[in-house]
Amino acid sequence: MGLLDADITGPSIPRLFGVTSKPADIGLGLVPATSSAGIKVMSLNLLLAREDDPVVWRGPLIAGAVRQFWTDVIWGCLDYLIIDLPPGTGDAPLTVMQSLPVDQVVLVSSPQDLAAMVVRKAAKMAGMLGVSISGLIENMAGVACPHCGNVIEVFGTSHGRHQADALGVPFLGSVTLDPRLTVLSDTGRIEEYSLPALADIIPRLAGEDKR
Amino acid sequence: MGLLDADITGPSIPRLFGVTSKPADIGLGLVPATSSAGIKVMSLNLLLAREDDPVVWRGPLIAGAVRQFWTDVIWGCLDYLIIDLPPGTGDAPLTVMQSLPVDQVVLVSSPQDLAAMVVRKAAKMAGMLGVSISGLIENMAGVACPHCGNVIEVFGTSHGRHQADALGVPFLGSVTLDPRLTVLSDTGRIEEYSLPALADIIPRLAGEDKR
Repeated sequence: MGLLDADITGPSIPRLFGVTSKPADIGLGLVPATSSAGIKVMSLNLLLAREDDPVVWRGPLIAGAVRQFWTDVIWGCLDYLIIDLPPGTGDAPLTVMQSLPVDQVVLVSSPQDLAAMVVRKAAKMAGMLGVSISGLIENMAGVACPHCGNVIEVFGTSHGRHQADALGVPFLGSVTLDPRLTVLSDTGRIEEYSLPALADIIPRLAGEDKR
Repeated sequence: MGLLDADITGPSIPRLFGVTSKPADIGLGLVPATSSAGIKVMSLNLLLAREDDPVVWRGPLIAGAVRQFWTDVIWGCLDYLIIDLPPGTGDAPLTVMQSLPVDQVVLVSSPQDLAAMVVRKAAKMAGMLGVSISGLIENMAGVACPHCGNVIEVFGTSHGRHQADALGVPFLGSVTLDPRLTVLSDTGRIEEYSLPALADIIPRLAGEDKR
């Protein structure tokens, strides 16, 4: 599996996966870094001297970097290439949907109506560009209090299924907030996280389960 | 006070403030909409037929819209103009810092190390462009469980003060997550929200209290 970080000005994939090695330039192209679970990773942050150096680029440079992460990286034989996009409908998503051979888009929403509005924009954009949508995942759907066990709907009442129905796309599932995930994310060990909800979502994402 | 929504592809200000009226074009320029508390608002979403229509624009168009929101809007006499930026260091923040007479930048972080990294990028960007930083606010610093009252550190342990110290900027304060805020945000009534922490932060933002 490969993971292309198309969030050029706010890249988070290397930190999440604990990947720090620089992609090697072997003349034919760049060899992506590899996570401890074996996922091939390419991100602009791997090309910077320091991970917090800013990439102060205008759109055409951002679009160029996204294209090069596809054309100039030796991905090799992959089962899936997942592309992480920044929110919104700017240069990075537009370039990915127009210039890369994308099979499907996964929408990630949250219970906030505000997030739902931005996700509807993204869904309409995919429609305009003729890219099909595999479905919608609801993120940050509440958090279980570690003290009393009750679920707190921090960002409002979950309505991922309703959102998906309104867009006419499959509802893939909800993922709750979990402080353990923050710790694993911040320490580059996101691959150690397991969540029953995800085990249910992933086969549906891959189209292996068309429930 | 004025509020310029420079998040062109994911604008949230009109929804938060319950503003839906179209800015009037009076020939000399656009008259901004006004919130119920009297804040003048300009956002690309006010110019769309439907709030969830996507703005599928490349960087130069995004930068042009941000500039026009400054040059072609009749802001009138304001005490403060606050510009809301999307995360990252792309076209919108670059245009704002290069083309608009910005006095100060306020950094907004969260307890996640991941967010801190992106905020460090933004701080370095401001430094490169010679824009001064008024300080750092930590957002999403835990949530109080409405059932048992204990605070849950959903996104990790608060270290806003440490972040601010590391950047050499004033620490302006922490704002916790609050489900009531989500409800008010989603229903356009964010101006009804009051939080003691904010009452403490705002004078420091405005430079009226240099503690």
